[in-house]
Amino acid sequence: MTQQPVHPAHSRVLVDHDGVQVPVTRVALTNGETFDRYCTTGPGGDPAVGLPALRAPWIEGRGDTTTYDGRGPDPLDDGRGAARRGGARQAWTGPRRPPRRATGGAVTQMAYARRGEVTQEMRYAAAREGCDVELVRSEVAAGRAIIPANPNHPEAEPMVIGKRFLVKINANIGNSAVTSSIAEEVEKLTWATTWGADTVMDLSTGDDIHTTREWILRNSAVPIGTVPIYQALEKVDGEADRLTWEVYRDTVIEQAEQGVDYMTVHAGVLLRHVPLTVDRVTGIVSRGGSIMAGWCLAHHEENFLYTHFDELCEIFAAYDVAFSLGDGLRPGSVADANDAAQLAELRTLGELTLRAWEHDVQVMVEGPGHVPLHLVEENVVLQQDWCHGAPFYTLGPLATDVAPGYDHITSAIGAAAIAMHGTAMLCYVTPKEHLGLPDRDDVKTGVITYKLAAHAADVAKGHPGARAWDDELSKARFEFRWHDQFALSLDPPTAQAMHDETLPAEAAKTAHFCSMCGPKFCSMRISQDVRERFREKSEEFVELGSTVYVDPLDPAVAARA
Amino acid sequence: MTQQPVHPAHSRVLVDHDGVQVPVTRVALTNGETFDRYCTTGPGGDPAVGLPALRAPWIEGRGDTTTYDGRGPDPLDDGRGAARRGGARQAWTGPRRPPRRATGGAVTQMAYARRGEVTQEMRYAAAREGCDVELVRSEVAAGRAIIPANPNHPEAEPMVIGKRFLVKINANIGNSAVTSSIAEEVEKLTWATTWGADTVMDLSTGDDIHTTREWILRNSAVPIGTVPIYQALEKVDGEADRLTWEVYRDTVIEQAEQGVDYMTVHAGVLLRHVPLTVDRVTGIVSRGGSIMAGWCLAHHEENFLYTHFDELCEIFAAYDVAFSLGDGLRPGSVADANDAAQLAELRTLGELTLRAWEHDVQVMVEGPGHVPLHLVEENVVLQQDWCHGAPFYTLGPLATDVAPGYDHITSAIGAAAIAMHGTAMLCYVTPKEHLGLPDRDDVKTGVITYKLAAHAADVAKGHPGARAWDDELSKARFEFRWHDQFALSLDPPTAQAMHDETLPAEAAKTAHFCSMCGPKFCSMRISQDVRERFREKSEEFVELGSTVYVDPLDPAVAARA
Repeated sequence: MTQQPVHPAHSRVLVDHDGVQVPVTRVALTNGETFDRYCTTGPGGDPAVGLPALRAPWIEGRGDTTTYDGRGPDPLDDGRGAARRGGARQAWTGPRRPPRRATGGAVTQMAYARRGEVTQEMRYAAAREGCDVELVRSEVAAGRAIIPANPNHPEAEPMVIGKRFLVKINANIGNSAVTSSIAEEVEKLTWATTWGADTVMDLSTGDDIHTTREWILRNSAVPIGTVPIYQALEKVDGEADRLTWEVYRDTVIEQAEQGVDYMTVHAGVLLRHVPLTVDRVTGIVSRGGSIMAGWCLAHHEENFLYTHFDELCEIFAAYDVAFSLGDGLRPGSVADANDAAQLAELRTLGELTLRAWEHDVQVMVEGPGHVPLHLVEENVVLQQDWCHGAPFYTLGPLATDVAPGYDHITSAIGAAAIAMHGTAMLCYVTPKEHLGLPDRDDVKTGVITYKLAAHAADVAKGHPGARAWDDELSKARFEFRWHDQFALSLDPPTAQAMHDETLPAEAAKTAHFCSMCGPKFCSMRISQDVRERFREKSEEFVELGSTVYVDPLDPAVAARA
Repeated sequence: MTQQPVHPAHSRVLVDHDGVQVPVTRVALTNGETFDRYCTTGPGGDPAVGLPALRAPWIEGRGDTTTYDGRGPDPLDDGRGAARRGGARQAWTGPRRPPRRATGGAVTQMAYARRGEVTQEMRYAAAREGCDVELVRSEVAAGRAIIPANPNHPEAEPMVIGKRFLVKINANIGNSAVTSSIAEEVEKLTWATTWGADTVMDLSTGDDIHTTREWILRNSAVPIGTVPIYQALEKVDGEADRLTWEVYRDTVIEQAEQGVDYMTVHAGVLLRHVPLTVDRVTGIVSRGGSIMAGWCLAHHEENFLYTHFDELCEIFAAYDVAFSLGDGLRPGSVADANDAAQLAELRTLGELTLRAWEHDVQVMVEGPGHVPLHLVEENVVLQQDWCHGAPFYTLGPLATDVAPGYDHITSAIGAAAIAMHGTAMLCYVTPKEHLGLPDRDDVKTGVITYKLAAHAADVAKGHPGARAWDDELSKARFEFRWHDQFALSLDPPTAQAMHDETLPAEAAKTAHFCSMCGPKFCSMRISQDVRERFREKSEEFVELGSTVYVDPLDPAVAARA
């Protein structure tokens, strides 16, 4: 099964950039031209088999990793329910590769970049961005960009996250104890990448958590992130007080062996930060943050993720797992934005960034949350300063709390603004935020909304080539090439369906109007007439002399008059 | 028929502010408290009869207007089809008041304000804003705010538009030649104000245009705006070249007698500006702008709206119609943003603002359109500077062109940003923008999206009391008062429906989790536990001394260490 394109004029094409073949979504236009867009769909395939291992020869070729037996399956990996039943409800059926890890020092893209080595992953990511590979290498070496690329996830098409590159978006999927199946989650993954998700986080918290992740990883052409504390908590029956470094460490290795590319680690939630949250309007709203804060208080000990951070770095270095340093104390309401708790944690994340870099481990730093618009920029400025330029990865932020059901929009407002100021990746928010688990439609709405926010930021940043897409679509619009306008849009079927609601006939696809204004009032039709008329009359205008055109309010003209 | 509240906990209540009774939407919370929100629904009533004339005694009491016979109906007022049929398809059935106009000088709120007179309209608007009436009077006197209040629309509840006040939103309704009926348009009006539209523009362009407007005005508790050139064009069979000042003038008087509160006038589209649009990506995208540009070129004459502007001001002064100075040359794509054509017109609008103010006529100035995020602020700065602080009224702007079908969102991103920088009113954009005429669902989506953008701007501007709403909702969220969270939200039925999709039982409305994370992972539940634990342990913490809390990275602490 090949992944279906979302429009008949779309096709996934491999294009050559200096010998590197990278996928693009090629849009065939009715005027004979084509327009290529960044493509995240992957090659597609049978979900029961998984994707080809694109990166396998590159990884093997480097000769710095080896396969080994691995920790082996634990009956509890899929939770108590599965252990009782003797396994997950839907076992992984495709090929199983033995896990692979470093034989010596760090096998991270950062380690290579710092040594001046240009990897295939860097070439691939640069080709997708249309930039020089040296820009990718140097940004990764400096810690200002990451390429999440666990050798145990060779199916992933490499991509780069950093403020010098296209703004990326992440889609969260995953079941919760209340709802959803493995097949649904794999379907959500495919669906999210079809619409443009650059990475996907599997936030499953229910049963079958290991096996769900296996299905997701083997079918994912984008990097996969997780929050290991969720699975660790399942292993101790949801009793946060019973969490230990050992359970957590084992879970991290389990996930690293499967191929998770980046992990959210709430190591910045320190015992001394907890009192700062007590008078907040909404306390602690990060799941990982609240779990670790509860643990710290119960044991009256420092967060074990902080105290064991160097050991964690050693594991991450051996599998090139990137840190996504979690903002466990992010504000959950505009009232709590940029407060002492949030900023205290951010300082700690800056300290941890340097510690991870000592191990050549790649780092991005997570950010809020709920932030009123006038405080958005400060978030990026402080993060970039305190975290030494490590990529910022924010959840929205929501610019107001008053619109549950529309939080994809309240957060897209904050997301576009924060990305314009330098955030490298945006974690999507779906309409179901605060209300329930997103379904397939919510995932699509969240992804499309964040793609448009990310693109708006790319345009605002003057990212090379970003505006070409807007211009191409606007030209199609002005020339009444309706099919091209649909094909070039972020969501062709929705754009076409909305148009066709009132004017379904094929003739309307070349008509010089739509039902919005009707034929007599179509400004673009009239504007084209105006353009023709002007061109006919331009000689006449020239005869009238320049006085017709000059603005009497223009100071230069006024001075002459 | 009383207008149905959108949630059982909502009711429209009149509250007294210094002797002025103004409506609020009162939200009854499950904890026994109430929360009052700005209310635009109006008193409701039978659409065939219309609303009570709230302002009639105030207007009569001023003694500076008189009723008169009026211009009388013209068979062409409802278009050629209606003239042939002998009338509109659905005649207005309610009471008809004779039109009223000034007996002497200007009867505008600006004229009163400049003379130091505090009107009932000012008191009413101030009471709704919760501010001192002197702020309203002085801002109106200075031209920095307007109160659209035609004496022939006494049904309207006065409101103020200006950057010192709550950001307002406008919803466009109106049929086009292609679709929709009078009943549908009245329904859209009621629907738009139910969800919070502060003003409504009737942009009808088809048949029955006069009668549709009559139904809308008689049923509207919010100010109504129009674009008279649309109806004028109908009167000359859609042939822009045949437009004359006389046809336009007659149409303006027809609409002023009906009670239109503000009119978009494209008097800034000058002959010399037209050549500046020729090389644009999307030419002229304003309907009125393209009509007037076409007229100028065809006749090779200056725009008659510009040459007759003072006569127009005299009419507006006699009916207190406010100008909405149209941006006929606004950019229709990010490529054309802030270009020479747009800015040349803006300078002319600044000149016209001063001319209108000489007649004591109220003015707001329209703005774009499509603007990339980094150019948004410049739009407000230049408009405020060149137009002498007159309120800015923008359409979006859309931050990118690539998402037809989602342009309520691409534009809400720009709208929140531009409002934060000082735009006074936002014209909504629905998901159907560029694709077709919005239906009932699109109107609601557009209004809710713009309410949240406007509120985000109010919060960012630090508008007094704005954040109280966010805090109230966030408190309800943190305390798991689900019913209150729904009732306080911008769209209670949608929020509740999304929650109930996975957890429909009544017990779930007080449950300390939702399906998003499930019970074990609910951060807010854990966070409440943390708070309890912390309070239990706080004495223990104090004994440990302050070292537990200080941040070793804090420079002050580092210096001590």
